[in-house]
Amino acid sequence: MPLPGHSAVDRDPLIKAHRTADATLTVTANGAPLSGQEVVVAQRNHKFLFGCIGFDLIPLANGDLTTNAATSAATDAERLADRWLDLFNFATLPFYWGGFEPVRGRPDTERLRRAAQWFADRGCLVKGHPLAWHTVTADWLKDLDNAEIARTQVDRIQREVTDFAGVIDTWDVINEVVIMPIFDRYDNGITRICRELGRIPMIRMVFDAARAANPRATLLLNDFDLSAGYECLIEGVLEAGIQIDALGLQSHMHQGYWGEEKTLGIIDRFARYGLPIHFTETTILSGHLMPADIVDLNDYQIPDWPTTPEGEARQAEEITSFYRTLLSQPSVEAMTYWGLSDGGWLGAPGGFVRADGTPKPSYQALHSLIKGDWWLPPTTMVTDPEGRVRFNGFLGEYEVSAVGKVATVRLDEPGPATLAVDL
Amino acid sequence: MPLPGHSAVDRDPLIKAHRTADATLTVTANGAPLSGQEVVVAQRNHKFLFGCIGFDLIPLANGDLTTNAATSAATDAERLADRWLDLFNFATLPFYWGGFEPVRGRPDTERLRRAAQWFADRGCLVKGHPLAWHTVTADWLKDLDNAEIARTQVDRIQREVTDFAGVIDTWDVINEVVIMPIFDRYDNGITRICRELGRIPMIRMVFDAARAANPRATLLLNDFDLSAGYECLIEGVLEAGIQIDALGLQSHMHQGYWGEEKTLGIIDRFARYGLPIHFTETTILSGHLMPADIVDLNDYQIPDWPTTPEGEARQAEEITSFYRTLLSQPSVEAMTYWGLSDGGWLGAPGGFVRADGTPKPSYQALHSLIKGDWWLPPTTMVTDPEGRVRFNGFLGEYEVSAVGKVATVRLDEPGPATLAVDL
Repeated sequence: MPLPGHSAVDRDPLIKAHRTADATLTVTANGAPLSGQEVVVAQRNHKFLFGCIGFDLIPLANGDLTTNAATSAATDAERLADRWLDLFNFATLPFYWGGFEPVRGRPDTERLRRAAQWFADRGCLVKGHPLAWHTVTADWLKDLDNAEIARTQVDRIQREVTDFAGVIDTWDVINEVVIMPIFDRYDNGITRICRELGRIPMIRMVFDAARAANPRATLLLNDFDLSAGYECLIEGVLEAGIQIDALGLQSHMHQGYWGEEKTLGIIDRFARYGLPIHFTETTILSGHLMPADIVDLNDYQIPDWPTTPEGEARQAEEITSFYRTLLSQPSVEAMTYWGLSDGGWLGAPGGFVRADGTPKPSYQALHSLIKGDWWLPPTTMVTDPEGRVRFNGFLGEYEVSAVGKVATVRLDEPGPATLAVDL
Repeated sequence: MPLPGHSAVDRDPLIKAHRTADATLTVTANGAPLSGQEVVVAQRNHKFLFGCIGFDLIPLANGDLTTNAATSAATDAERLADRWLDLFNFATLPFYWGGFEPVRGRPDTERLRRAAQWFADRGCLVKGHPLAWHTVTADWLKDLDNAEIARTQVDRIQREVTDFAGVIDTWDVINEVVIMPIFDRYDNGITRICRELGRIPMIRMVFDAARAANPRATLLLNDFDLSAGYECLIEGVLEAGIQIDALGLQSHMHQGYWGEEKTLGIIDRFARYGLPIHFTETTILSGHLMPADIVDLNDYQIPDWPTTPEGEARQAEEITSFYRTLLSQPSVEAMTYWGLSDGGWLGAPGGFVRADGTPKPSYQALHSLIKGDWWLPPTTMVTDPEGRVRFNGFLGEYEVSAVGKVATVRLDEPGPATLAVDL
């Protein structure tokens, strides 16, 4: 009998089927096949978006840590950045309106642009999160009437999406709409207008604004409510003809790992809309779990939430199980982990790196997938008489080196792939 | 401090504002004012739909109890019918597909038509429940492919709505769509097609069929899921341009009375669509409550679930509170109680009449509202020189008698009303 959360199904054949290609690569030099030559093929990137929030690295990206004597902080940040970049290729940056523009008309654009560029320069896709949300929204919206709030929301989206186009072309446009108009923990401008407009007109308004500002952007609807309520919302949005590019599913697991069966059930329900699925906010703990009776995770605030050896062993297993489960399902295109280091949201021990900067077993476990089992290290092959080499590799970008020259190829679709490079 | 479920707000002013009219009635005879004459005004019916299921009375309505020696059963049924008719003016009859047409092509039309006519003959509005639902649906649907199931569902709706037009012009068209496509307790034909079609196209299909068969019918969407999920579904349905005539909210309270605050909160959330609200399925117990940890009420099956004196006292208070809360809100147009007698669904003591046929305090409590506080008994008034009498009455139908003649008037809208009868 399999352990809870550990299916008896071997996921490797599915992962291989959906995530790898069998490449036949013809190497030529000046148009002539290079036969019987040594060729080195090395994977450079994954097509799958292995994501993480990049909030912690914004000061480093802005050089904020090198202007004073805080050498140790800078070194720590650089070490963390190296660990981050060794695992991930997809960064989420914070655009919470209340933090981004605490004073109306003074947005934090430059600092965020430098951070986004820093990640882009290092080969990462960057996502902004979120453009509309009732939580952490700008407090000054409450001074406006509803028509003005709506106009300001639209303007804000046009501004950010335009300002960041080319560096950030992926956005969580709107967050947690299922609860948005009935959110009752405190008054805020976004709940007010969502209640007046209705959910679908609200979504249409913000998506129209984002689409107009950057027609090439990938625009997500994102929610923590994975019940039938989100399905109903999605079906209404699609019925209304609003184009959603990907569905965001939050997946904070402070109350315990879902296990494979539940995870597969959720993917099954949301995959049937034919849209790519992004797991947008995943947390799996390496300490004690939050009690199951907490409904709003924000209600659990404790002074110290330690990581433990047993918790770290469990977390490493669960991380492996979760990533393997997601990659076995072709609809899932991205997975964003909610913080590399401990002590982020709610102070939970949800990172892959402890507060002291040392990596947990989960870091090694994930690394051994992303840069191990699912990665082609530099591999020397010899071409056949027609100049061909053959290899199986995970979808992504590869460097091909021979006769002192280098070229790049991409594996974009699973299954047989015929490629050619002329060196 | 008010008791739980008992608001400090006096609901009477709201009930009076939304449910009564101040009538000025001019009485003439052959066109001339009847001045200084005695006039008797007597309420005959309520505009508000005080409903109850009429399942128990189908045998009586069909004369099934008088053809053999079961005199006692017939007498019991007639006594129950009298009690039913003394409280209610709105009957819900069962059209569960699996019970109505257990063998394909042999629907139970005649028996249900006689039952519907029996209620209509006694001044009741009759509703059919439901035309589409995944539970208690026809088992033989599973032998068909999805296209054929959908066609058969449409045909079934057209048949019933056509066959009963004029006697039943109110229908719960489709039931529990929020869960319908992901219902996983057992395989059934309706879940299959809802999953393939999507919720909104499914609703469009069944509403189009019912509307085409009887354009004058009042058509309801009904659900037990009163979470944001139902809101999202409704918003999608309205956005898709599907005409819903009233929103049905189930309100089984086997786990305890909601209280006024929760009830008002639910009405507030669903009233904002501007549609009439029907509370379609209410149960309030006079025995011990179902444990709070039961999620699907069907999972709680016990051999004997007694009514108790304390429970009956509590039920009477809660019934009073609930009906008064609903009538204080103008969007609520109907309230259907789920069974006059104990021992109905789940064997729960949810009736107003015990299994032995004796009425509980709740029966008296509700009677003293519907036929007491909210009712104008035959009342003698004397016309002024212009032939006018004035009275405040609950919206509904009134009989006016003078000089040996009788006429009928209706109070249809709250507030001042000017009426005239010529005797």
